[in-house]
Amino acid sequence: MNIGPHTFAEFRRLTEQFHGCAAPGILLGGRMVTAARAALPEGTLFEALVETRSCLPDAVQMLTPCSVGNKRLHVINHGKMALSLFDKYNGRGVRCFVDASRLGPWPEMRVWLMKEKSKEQQDSALLEQEIEQAGTSVMALADMRVHESFLGKKSSGPVVLCSGCGESYPREHGDKCLFCQGETPFVMWPRKTKTL
Amino acid sequence: MNIGPHTFAEFRRLTEQFHGCAAPGILLGGRMVTAARAALPEGTLFEALVETRSCLPDAVQMLTPCSVGNKRLHVINHGKMALSLFDKYNGRGVRCFVDASRLGPWPEMRVWLMKEKSKEQQDSALLEQEIEQAGTSVMALADMRVHESFLGKKSSGPVVLCSGCGESYPREHGDKCLFCQGETPFVMWPRKTKTL
Repeated sequence: MNIGPHTFAEFRRLTEQFHGCAAPGILLGGRMVTAARAALPEGTLFEALVETRSCLPDAVQMLTPCSVGNKRLHVINHGKMALSLFDKYNGRGVRCFVDASRLGPWPEMRVWLMKEKSKEQQDSALLEQEIEQAGTSVMALADMRVHESFLGKKSSGPVVLCSGCGESYPREHGDKCLFCQGETPFVMWPRKTKTL
Repeated sequence: MNIGPHTFAEFRRLTEQFHGCAAPGILLGGRMVTAARAALPEGTLFEALVETRSCLPDAVQMLTPCSVGNKRLHVINHGKMALSLFDKYNGRGVRCFVDASRLGPWPEMRVWLMKEKSKEQQDSALLEQEIEQAGTSVMALADMRVHESFLGKKSSGPVVLCSGCGESYPREHGDKCLFCQGETPFVMWPRKTKTL
């Protein structure tokens, strides 16, 4: 049972490159993406919606043309092991999720999903073996349709220069850019030595 | 002047694979990532903060170990062509941004950045040529430090099964998962034919 065009071992290697390690969520996520895609009509131009920030976004980005930067990958922070692929135009698609009621034969997956033990106490080798062997047997599919706010191209409108910092920003944000309005998740100051 | 370990032409090809097309923002973003990284002390374990959802997140994901799914890439939606790489532990780093005052010699970049013409009216070949030739001359660096809320590992706490849908979710979200509480960016219904 392949993950996209890759064997499990190949995909495992690729996750180490892209994600930094072969985390359980991304191995499982790879299977979920593959299952959802197989359930879409062939040739569908699709986007993706993942329901957790952990791991699943990377599985989607590694296996589909959907990325955060091309805005075809949408991330909502519901903390659920679930993802959907949906038709970009009509919003209809397929949701793949981990069905906790099917975890019986795979105790280490349950321990991991439900955080029944700390990461250090979990048996990561056994967990990975279970993920490989369980395949899609721990997942379920549902038909879905995204809210229409996900459809169509949204322009952020005209761009202007900020009277505070001089940088460009979307005029719809107001008289100044959001940073100069006080939304400051960071502080900054000029470098002593110019390097550019 | 390379983009990460790649020549401009190689990076261009890679963006077509990962991002779908060699968009101006990602070509410019590749340079910004390279410049910011070169300004960090060697060996720094860093995370990234990008200030727009467009293109820049993909430049970071292609050129650094930071991704959305491993939570080392943070995206804020300020609509600004700017990104920072910062020390994961002390939050100090370098911000690279497009300095609009330096765009004089590159009229097509200005047209693009300020949306002075529609996408169709822009000269995409000239734009790409300008991006390649301008290099980092249109950028500036600043020292920065992220807000401490970006530092340290945040656990989402215990996981429980939702009494509504039966799926696992973080207990801190409440009595039911956010979807079953009514946060529903999509509707779903059982598939007529089970495929898993």
